[in-house]
Amino acid sequence: MELISLADVRAAATSIAGVAVRTPLLAAPWAGELWLKPESLQPIGAFKIRGAYHAIASLPPERRAAGIVTHSSGNHGQAVAYSARAFGVPSVVVMPDVAEPSKVAATCALGAEVLLVPPAERASRMAELIESRGMNPIPPFDHRDVIAGQGTVGLEIVEDLSTVDVVLVPVGGGGLASGVATAVKALRPGAAVIGVEPETAADARDSLRAGELVVWPVERTYATSADGLRTSLSELTLAHLRAHLDDIVTVSEEEISATVGVLARQARLVVEPSGAVAPAAYLHRGKELPAGRTVAVLSGGNIDPAALARILTTTAAE
Amino acid sequence: MELISLADVRAAATSIAGVAVRTPLLAAPWAGELWLKPESLQPIGAFKIRGAYHAIASLPPERRAAGIVTHSSGNHGQAVAYSARAFGVPSVVVMPDVAEPSKVAATCALGAEVLLVPPAERASRMAELIESRGMNPIPPFDHRDVIAGQGTVGLEIVEDLSTVDVVLVPVGGGGLASGVATAVKALRPGAAVIGVEPETAADARDSLRAGELVVWPVERTYATSADGLRTSLSELTLAHLRAHLDDIVTVSEEEISATVGVLARQARLVVEPSGAVAPAAYLHRGKELPAGRTVAVLSGGNIDPAALARILTTTAAE
Repeated sequence: MELISLADVRAAATSIAGVAVRTPLLAAPWAGELWLKPESLQPIGAFKIRGAYHAIASLPPERRAAGIVTHSSGNHGQAVAYSARAFGVPSVVVMPDVAEPSKVAATCALGAEVLLVPPAERASRMAELIESRGMNPIPPFDHRDVIAGQGTVGLEIVEDLSTVDVVLVPVGGGGLASGVATAVKALRPGAAVIGVEPETAADARDSLRAGELVVWPVERTYATSADGLRTSLSELTLAHLRAHLDDIVTVSEEEISATVGVLARQARLVVEPSGAVAPAAYLHRGKELPAGRTVAVLSGGNIDPAALARILTTTAAE
Repeated sequence: MELISLADVRAAATSIAGVAVRTPLLAAPWAGELWLKPESLQPIGAFKIRGAYHAIASLPPERRAAGIVTHSSGNHGQAVAYSARAFGVPSVVVMPDVAEPSKVAATCALGAEVLLVPPAERASRMAELIESRGMNPIPPFDHRDVIAGQGTVGLEIVEDLSTVDVVLVPVGGGGLASGVATAVKALRPGAAVIGVEPETAADARDSLRAGELVVWPVERTYATSADGLRTSLSELTLAHLRAHLDDIVTVSEEEISATVGVLARQARLVVEPSGAVAPAAYLHRGKELPAGRTVAVLSGGNIDPAALARILTTTAAE
């Protein structure tokens, strides 16, 4: 399987310039030798804009004009809607008919047509749109251009902190971790890139250890509040992680929740549970990590405000 | 009175590079043609680091070695402590003995010696430290280097959005507004720079209209939740604002509070009441503002987590 290269990530950086925010690295001396990469500050509140925009930008214009289709009830759907609108082309986001109304509304507000279908029909309805309208599928992670786009996070980390020793990155479908590990290892081979997963959705860790795809049942991964990390890897992302990732550590639900509170208090950032797993590993699993100057990627900030309020009133200051 | 110049602000930009965060401009299309300048992401959570650090950097090293003294129970005290420590020199922050324990602790944690004194003795105790220990006073706003440091916010705004039409900036003692107006008007004379104050602490508006310092009684300004904006201007900041500021608008307590909630929800930023007045003006007082591409400066993010939780549960989504 051909993996993406540093050159692919550099090409993505050119394509997303001026669209994705060049997020700063924020020192977190209150935690130790930690820096935060707040992708929660992107338009639509997550790193997903990088991969979605680059993948759409990479389509030949005449094909792009037919529009984009994807299935995602979360941040990737919004990233596709946002990016398609930026190119002035239509987008359809296929969502399960059980999706939260607030997510449907947010995706619609970005100009996408949302198609609510029974969960079992998602694949067939997407295939239909590709067939009948010639739309281009942009999946959330199983796509080389998407991975290259997410990799720009790693490029920026090394640009801003050339002496980085450890990069902590959340792992769901593995697109972000694949891209970041590709860029960081190419630019600074001595740095460790460590994936972080919730304990209740540690199928990427198991896959990496087994050397082949291990998929956990949905009933199990749905136990985590980190809804962006319930997905399993694909063959493509597993191949990248096997090539470039040093290890995967896991964090508990309590650690995730406490870290959401700490980030609001100490870093003044609103971060969703999926976005808090990397700093949670630094704060709570330090003994399992290499020492040194560490960057934690905060992947997104789309948390329910009521959940944030609960965390602020129930977790202790640190 | 000699005002600071664009050259002074450029010098400050060189001095703070690598210390203050180069905060990004975040587009806020959900609000209209609005961009946010999130100074809440600075170390210590407020723009104050810019002015304090530059003023300390500007001291001759042999004088600086004697240390820094200031009186501030808020963000400026923490900025002085942080900056003095960066230079390896001692700092004393004189606070009223009624100051909140959490603010005393935060300032101590940054390495300052905190001197708690009866409010009436603040000036005399500061004078004593200057006399006996040869310490250098760095006031929160009534100082040319402090104003030049805060002006780097304006420099960065025009660098990042050269077509900006309107800049909204909070006004307390006027250091930030003075510096930002100096930079923006020098680089883009056609842009309007508008100050924003709470209705219950609108003494800068009155001063600007009267053409001389108008001071509101403390009982009145203490009614606002925007604790960073209760201070009055000095002759120095009034002179800058008369020269460069186009107007001052005011916002209500309800508008401030609602905007803190909107910023957490839509921009994923934790902002204190003082930091929310500028976007509050855009969201609620649009008719009083010039049209066009608008940047709102979010001055700081040091809000009590319990207050933020209350706002998240009581204010409506927008």
